[in-house]
Amino acid sequence: MAFTFLQDKIIAAQTKIVMIIMDGLGGLPREPGGKTELETAVKPNLDTLAAQSELGLTVPVGPGITAGSGPGHLAIFGYDPIEYEIGRGALEALGVDFDLGLNDVAARGNFCSVDGKGNLIDRRAGRLPTEVSFELAKLLRTIKVDGVEFFIEPVKEHRFAFVIRGQGLGDSMTETDPFKTGVPPLKLHALTPDSEKTAQCVNKFVEKARLLMAGKQPANMVLLRGFTKFPRIPMYQELFALNPAAIAINGMYRGVARLAGMTILDLEGDTLKDEFAALEKHWNEFDFFYLHVKKTDTCGETGDFTGKVGVIEEVDAQIPRLLALRPDVVIIGGDHSTPSVLQSHSWHPVPVLLYSKYARGHGNPQFGERACASGGLGILPAKDIMPIALAHAGRIAKYGA
Amino acid sequence: MAFTFLQDKIIAAQTKIVMIIMDGLGGLPREPGGKTELETAVKPNLDTLAAQSELGLTVPVGPGITAGSGPGHLAIFGYDPIEYEIGRGALEALGVDFDLGLNDVAARGNFCSVDGKGNLIDRRAGRLPTEVSFELAKLLRTIKVDGVEFFIEPVKEHRFAFVIRGQGLGDSMTETDPFKTGVPPLKLHALTPDSEKTAQCVNKFVEKARLLMAGKQPANMVLLRGFTKFPRIPMYQELFALNPAAIAINGMYRGVARLAGMTILDLEGDTLKDEFAALEKHWNEFDFFYLHVKKTDTCGETGDFTGKVGVIEEVDAQIPRLLALRPDVVIIGGDHSTPSVLQSHSWHPVPVLLYSKYARGHGNPQFGERACASGGLGILPAKDIMPIALAHAGRIAKYGA
Repeated sequence: MAFTFLQDKIIAAQTKIVMIIMDGLGGLPREPGGKTELETAVKPNLDTLAAQSELGLTVPVGPGITAGSGPGHLAIFGYDPIEYEIGRGALEALGVDFDLGLNDVAARGNFCSVDGKGNLIDRRAGRLPTEVSFELAKLLRTIKVDGVEFFIEPVKEHRFAFVIRGQGLGDSMTETDPFKTGVPPLKLHALTPDSEKTAQCVNKFVEKARLLMAGKQPANMVLLRGFTKFPRIPMYQELFALNPAAIAINGMYRGVARLAGMTILDLEGDTLKDEFAALEKHWNEFDFFYLHVKKTDTCGETGDFTGKVGVIEEVDAQIPRLLALRPDVVIIGGDHSTPSVLQSHSWHPVPVLLYSKYARGHGNPQFGERACASGGLGILPAKDIMPIALAHAGRIAKYGA
Repeated sequence: MAFTFLQDKIIAAQTKIVMIIMDGLGGLPREPGGKTELETAVKPNLDTLAAQSELGLTVPVGPGITAGSGPGHLAIFGYDPIEYEIGRGALEALGVDFDLGLNDVAARGNFCSVDGKGNLIDRRAGRLPTEVSFELAKLLRTIKVDGVEFFIEPVKEHRFAFVIRGQGLGDSMTETDPFKTGVPPLKLHALTPDSEKTAQCVNKFVEKARLLMAGKQPANMVLLRGFTKFPRIPMYQELFALNPAAIAINGMYRGVARLAGMTILDLEGDTLKDEFAALEKHWNEFDFFYLHVKKTDTCGETGDFTGKVGVIEEVDAQIPRLLALRPDVVIIGGDHSTPSVLQSHSWHPVPVLLYSKYARGHGNPQFGERACASGGLGILPAKDIMPIALAHAGRIAKYGA
């Protein structure tokens, strides 16, 4: 269904939608026939909600495709993740609240270690403390190249966002990161003529950085990869007539949310309780809230089945706070699966729950992969969840007489 | 999801995928509320496998569309059967191992019987013995028409593959088979200008055949239908980086498999056991195996409910041989439904089972239409099965960060 078709039918309403994304929610049993993380979790509040909700499984990108967090989020936000592709560089810059412009090219930077011959010893400079990165970023900001401007924003540990601003900058280039040690960082090459200028300027930057950082062991060089411009995606305001807010601790998720036009809410701390506190505090200011839970994915990635179960149980404990706000529509789902037995993202469809007073509650006794597989939403593209949520929120007009 | 998108993400792996296609697998109960053929079959091995597998129903072509074996196979092989249409003629030629060229036009031929006035008495000449067809084919090969070449390859009984080779041959034509008796075979008419030459040459061939075969009762004439050129479809090697093999007794299935780039394995005999023996024999040579079971369809077509149940039980008995090979991914499904109560192909979605150690085994107690309808794969286009199987085989890289 094309956006233009949907947009024509969007109507105003005084309803509120809350989308809780447990990152990497979908899981797998530890042994054949066993329970997944979500099925194992003791979660009375989510299960009660499930009985009154429509359940389903979302397919983030397409059959068999394992989604990264960027495409996974774009999809659950309602965008076609193949049509709207966000590069890593743009995501990194967005994640640190950098005001990326339409002529800017962004990349992901690493501080790294090279030996006397310039060969890489450690691509991450021993996962440098963030404070050191902060000082090195200040140093790199002194680098000047004619006709362009550089921005260096520390992210966390050895990582920084790199942005080059100027006229006539394309983003179709190779990367300087060789993805192995024992060889020197690579020179950039433009892959299309419109990126020649970018490649030349970035190569000059890298050479100046090398001279400037000499002797700054362990971080005496930089690696740059994932060069991308800001993708233009229609924002929630124009697309869905929503005034959206995002509650997320990690930069990447704040980045994708900002792309969709969401206001990023400040948090008092970095716990789940702080996130729900922000939801309560700003309840009257917005009509769409995205709340991101990172640790389900972190546990999945490290193979911590019990830990992932625990995070789901923590979310469950916050559900009464959410329901006390009397939201009209609640979506609880994930951006992709991260089964702890795989220790990585996976292609498996992701459980989703859609609650509203107009949901066909089928009395499913549990929010889990099994119940969702035969739920009322079916197995559906993740991008279809938002139109359904808008309908439940009374925000889509009838088509035809 | 476009092939180019998928192709970009294909990665090499040392995993093996086996696809067992029971032709016309999907069925219907004999009485309302009864069990289908698949549900009736006593099949402990398939049911045990189902409990550890993801189940679903595949839609071969589209809602309500009854698929022939050609499109049904293309779909389960991963191709859009509407985009990639294979004509009957091309399939017939492929089925007898004819090396069809890109400028060739193929048709399905029948030896038939006409009376003294040239009117059809029997469209199949009493299902002529194959040996007789073999001699008649030799006779037809003596026919010459300027500017083109003809190839006549006996298939089985009254059937033969007909190929015309030359420059400027289109395949958009009517057929000579009137599909009834009491009338003469029809003259061919080109439906587009680029097929004028083909129509003229084939009409000359048919006229010469009539003269040449006069008195050769019962087979004293030919019928030609299904004129088609070789379709170009991307092969498994380039598309999925697989080295694929096919195990099939019947020509048509070998034909479609060859189109997808599969090596056709020789069989010692024509039983199911011979097919599984070929799988065992060639196990180390390939990483994808397609194994075709014809008789489920044959029984369905003749209304033999019990016979179809029996064939499924025969397949079940071979499953331990398959599992002993320790395949990474097993797909068991069909190319279309052939309910024996209908005695024909049907539009009903087809049960499918996808086994791998990463399957969300939901503990479904049975492989059957009912369990598949609420399975973890959902009701999905048949062409989506291969990407999912490739994911389970560790052969698709993540999309985005």
